[in-house]
Amino acid sequence: MSKDASLRDALRVPTGPISTAGFDAGGRPLAPSAKKMAQHLEEMADLQERFWAESTGGGGRSVLLVLQGMDTAGKGGVVTHAVGVFGPIGIEYTAFKKPTKEELEHDFLWRIRKRLPRPGMIGVFDRSHYEDVLVVRVHGLVPQAEWEARYDAINAFEQELTDGGTTVLKVFLNVSYDTQRERLLRRLDEPEKHWKFNEGDILERARWDDYQAAYGSVLERCSTDAAPWYVVPADHKTYRNWAVAELLRETLTELDPHYPQPDLDVASLRERLAPPH
Amino acid sequence: MSKDASLRDALRVPTGPISTAGFDAGGRPLAPSAKKMAQHLEEMADLQERFWAESTGGGGRSVLLVLQGMDTAGKGGVVTHAVGVFGPIGIEYTAFKKPTKEELEHDFLWRIRKRLPRPGMIGVFDRSHYEDVLVVRVHGLVPQAEWEARYDAINAFEQELTDGGTTVLKVFLNVSYDTQRERLLRRLDEPEKHWKFNEGDILERARWDDYQAAYGSVLERCSTDAAPWYVVPADHKTYRNWAVAELLRETLTELDPHYPQPDLDVASLRERLAPPH
Repeated sequence: MSKDASLRDALRVPTGPISTAGFDAGGRPLAPSAKKMAQHLEEMADLQERFWAESTGGGGRSVLLVLQGMDTAGKGGVVTHAVGVFGPIGIEYTAFKKPTKEELEHDFLWRIRKRLPRPGMIGVFDRSHYEDVLVVRVHGLVPQAEWEARYDAINAFEQELTDGGTTVLKVFLNVSYDTQRERLLRRLDEPEKHWKFNEGDILERARWDDYQAAYGSVLERCSTDAAPWYVVPADHKTYRNWAVAELLRETLTELDPHYPQPDLDVASLRERLAPPH
Repeated sequence: MSKDASLRDALRVPTGPISTAGFDAGGRPLAPSAKKMAQHLEEMADLQERFWAESTGGGGRSVLLVLQGMDTAGKGGVVTHAVGVFGPIGIEYTAFKKPTKEELEHDFLWRIRKRLPRPGMIGVFDRSHYEDVLVVRVHGLVPQAEWEARYDAINAFEQELTDGGTTVLKVFLNVSYDTQRERLLRRLDEPEKHWKFNEGDILERARWDDYQAAYGSVLERCSTDAAPWYVVPADHKTYRNWAVAELLRETLTELDPHYPQPDLDVASLRERLAPPH
């Protein structure tokens, strides 16, 4: 893909006031042919191997993919079908659930810091520190002054990560209200999917507008030069999975990782590889 | 695959005195057709999803895959091509390297315990506590009395894991001396693979017989009813990857995981899924 057709450029949150209503959940910007898509996926596995290999030679860089979205937006599907292309080596996946009692006793970034990717790794956060200005805000779990202060804290935190060599890739999987309904109904239709359903999903859905407002603030206040937000249309699953993969591929391509080139005395090593005994 | 053609039965280490020379690194017992293989891989992803889903309903079980083998045996390849079938959700992968100073200050199982799989997860150890009776024994890194005591400690530890609901699947990737030579030469042939090579590999290879003796003791003394060892022929990569996948598939099939069946009032939930606004 040429420089002037970057998906990151196409999906990056613009500066200025943001309403999530301004993003089309059903769009497919820059969607490639199936053939191109397969080619991209192959490239990804190669890029990730190089990125990981580079770190064994002392490279200190890492990537952090942050996935956020309403229920049914497809965080799990993206992890399986986009991140899954990489294979388990070099991926550090964390699903952040409701904080434990111990986690609540610390600053909201405490449990996040413990799961940051090591050099050479691609960290994947399935939910993240953004829940502390999303569910926490919608349900008023802390006083407003406390969550209000978190936007700046998050920006400072992500600047710190970027300065330390971590490329932060933040993706909002943008599912529409109608598509969420269809997907929840489908879960009810299939008994094997009932385990994915709980009444809380409906209660959260009832707060749709509050969540959209909270996401709007996140996108408006935390899309920085250091760590911009990308809005991925999530109503079409195949497109959604490809788009996240492509954002990763563009990111890794830009990082341009190289295999370490140790100075080996190949001839002598060859000789020392004793013949069969 | 029918019960009387279990790969676990075919590859399980027998009781009695063991020499690794007794295992054929070039064999392909029970190798299926390419079609069957693809079918198995699909089944695996489904089984793993069920296993993970079950834990969300309160299931406390986990699986721990322990991978050991000489350099070039293909631990990384197995992780990518066999474990990789599962996707990142539900996999906890750990590569154990040379212990850190902090790790050395603790019992050899300390760092292992920290990485045990949580309920619903498949933990994958790329090297493991067995290094403490392999490299440690070959290089005499601790007194003999100390590593000698570890076989019993390991058996007790694994019994404890099994009692706690973890199925321990231990796989020795059995590569031959000649195949190792070929693979090391190939790394020297391809500049892009030089980063995988270091002089230490040749020094370790020079200790081949010592390592085989150490592996023999591991297989003889630590293949228990609770946690048997399986010897996977590793000279043929495709077979090797399939075999490990198949051992996992058999294990998960036997565990027979089920999706949780919450008692949902489907009709009422359906109604509450408000129509589009």
